[in-house]
Amino acid sequence: MARELPNLQGPVCPLPLQHHDQILMGHGSGGKMSHDLITRIFLPPFDNPSLRAGDDAGLVKIELQGESNKGVMTGHIAISTDSHVVWPLFFPGGDIGRLSVCGTVNDVAMMGAKPLFLTAGFVLEEGLDVNTLKAVVASMQTAAAEACVMIVAGDTKVVQKGKADGIYINTTGVGLIPPGIEISGSRAQPGDVVVLSGPIGEHGIAVLEARHELGFTANIKSDIAPLNHLVRAMLETSNQIHVMRDPTRGGLATSLNEIARQSSVSIIIDEKRIPINPAVSMACELLGFDPLYIANEGKLIAIIAHEDAERVLHAMHSTRYGEEAVIIGEVRTEPKNRVLMRTTIGSTRIVDIPSGEILPRIC
Amino acid sequence: MARELPNLQGPVCPLPLQHHDQILMGHGSGGKMSHDLITRIFLPPFDNPSLRAGDDAGLVKIELQGESNKGVMTGHIAISTDSHVVWPLFFPGGDIGRLSVCGTVNDVAMMGAKPLFLTAGFVLEEGLDVNTLKAVVASMQTAAAEACVMIVAGDTKVVQKGKADGIYINTTGVGLIPPGIEISGSRAQPGDVVVLSGPIGEHGIAVLEARHELGFTANIKSDIAPLNHLVRAMLETSNQIHVMRDPTRGGLATSLNEIARQSSVSIIIDEKRIPINPAVSMACELLGFDPLYIANEGKLIAIIAHEDAERVLHAMHSTRYGEEAVIIGEVRTEPKNRVLMRTTIGSTRIVDIPSGEILPRIC
Repeated sequence: MARELPNLQGPVCPLPLQHHDQILMGHGSGGKMSHDLITRIFLPPFDNPSLRAGDDAGLVKIELQGESNKGVMTGHIAISTDSHVVWPLFFPGGDIGRLSVCGTVNDVAMMGAKPLFLTAGFVLEEGLDVNTLKAVVASMQTAAAEACVMIVAGDTKVVQKGKADGIYINTTGVGLIPPGIEISGSRAQPGDVVVLSGPIGEHGIAVLEARHELGFTANIKSDIAPLNHLVRAMLETSNQIHVMRDPTRGGLATSLNEIARQSSVSIIIDEKRIPINPAVSMACELLGFDPLYIANEGKLIAIIAHEDAERVLHAMHSTRYGEEAVIIGEVRTEPKNRVLMRTTIGSTRIVDIPSGEILPRIC
Repeated sequence: MARELPNLQGPVCPLPLQHHDQILMGHGSGGKMSHDLITRIFLPPFDNPSLRAGDDAGLVKIELQGESNKGVMTGHIAISTDSHVVWPLFFPGGDIGRLSVCGTVNDVAMMGAKPLFLTAGFVLEEGLDVNTLKAVVASMQTAAAEACVMIVAGDTKVVQKGKADGIYINTTGVGLIPPGIEISGSRAQPGDVVVLSGPIGEHGIAVLEARHELGFTANIKSDIAPLNHLVRAMLETSNQIHVMRDPTRGGLATSLNEIARQSSVSIIIDEKRIPINPAVSMACELLGFDPLYIANEGKLIAIIAHEDAERVLHAMHSTRYGEEAVIIGEVRTEPKNRVLMRTTIGSTRIVDIPSGEILPRIC
């Protein structure tokens, strides 16, 4: 193993946490600066086990009391929130409405929960075309119907022209975790297999294309999709799925690093096994982006006990959003908290978390 | 009754629902334009019983499954969402952080639910002073601790300078409704008593003062407060509390009108019984505002069966935020869907819902 990893012999520098005086775009990147902001500003006052877990959704226990002293029953629910500020509002393959529903449905589903209810909080910019809002709301409903979730509460605020960018949407999701399900970023175990549900980078490149920042036509559609039915099919097949996560902001690299740190393990992936649409690959090459860091909105990573991996993969292949699922790597003991990649040319390199901004306002 | 209400003899004009092509500030007012937006844009695609009920929070049923076939238990939870865009971020008596926690805690509590969990979604403007964010977050935690709720999930997005106004915060709350509690805007019954928990208009005037729009110093503090402990005390005293609502955007007048319509009843209030701080009264007079329409953030309206009203009032007086609670009116059969006020000069006038904007970005 040591011979495979010469670049690990050097010192692993901890990130110098800079005390920025101002919020920078990078604080919204999902990378190290975001992590820094959460660790320095949000966690100390709010500290509690749900937040500290650092998963896609907060896991909480509720106790229902039966009528007329029928006793108490305990259950677990997953709660997740996401504010969406993507620009432009419409892009190939989706729009802020579909994104806002799928993003939160997926975060709840990644805990193994069945997403049931969503709320929608709108911040609208004065002067917004009502037909734009109508199209976004219709798209939300289409996505909610596909995911079988109900939007049960809403709120609308209007801010003066120039104090928003058309529409910002917060969606918060509540889902029920079936008894016996325990999925968390902290449960990856050496020997586990890393599965990816399909090709990466499509959402990020589609949004860039809509911004006319590619300089060419890539004809890439965002992969935005609700993944809860895929998750259900997987959980019905195996009770040894340890981790699930959707690699959104910060991409596959960031999600895998989060898991490696939460579980104190090493994750090693094979570059040649990672599916990438050739057009995404080309766009990344031309723009100097690494597709490992590009946002996805319809993909999941699953970390599964070795003996169940093939069976789960088979179940995934029978679902709409899991047809292209593949094994991309495995979990090891050392080097802890690290993600490594065997490259196509045979070397092994560290895959780190990006520091700050790669693509702002991608979700 | 007819002699008291000469102005009802004329035709009651329905509001001509204008098909605005653009979102206007008034669409965020909480008044008729907001109602129009909800009815035209949001309800048709999202339609479901929780949203249609039009209460402060969505009421949903969940079923918990016991481990190892212990059966199923059904419970009810209340879910509410609110995006906060108040400007300025800090004002006498509070800030956007305290507002974001209390606003959502109160919406959940108004269903008779015990608020348990909150999520917090931040949209931050690039360039925001990190110390401002720290102060807001600390204030959120202070309010959450007072309300005994836990912030279990969060999200942060950053938008370019000029695409927000410092900080927008969405909070979504989840609370458990104890068995047997059934509170809704549709449950007001003729003969019920209308209780108000304290003086009105303080939040709106405090925010205006912070904007230096008063032109004088009123020394009014916002009344922002978490009302869930007050609600608990009330519910322990009576099982005949039919409606609770916090009169925020649109003020007391708008909330009472919503209840009158949801319940198809008439609500008649006495002007001389409505508590108003003299400084609020003076500010409203000078600015030409009617305090009935000014936002509150720490007050509630309760509609209670006549026989229980005094007992509930007594319980309210023993709590921190209910000390000044008073009976302000009663529910009648006719004229349906209307709020009337006996004025201090002895006449009776219709209290209508405002059409559009009174004070923008007040919450």
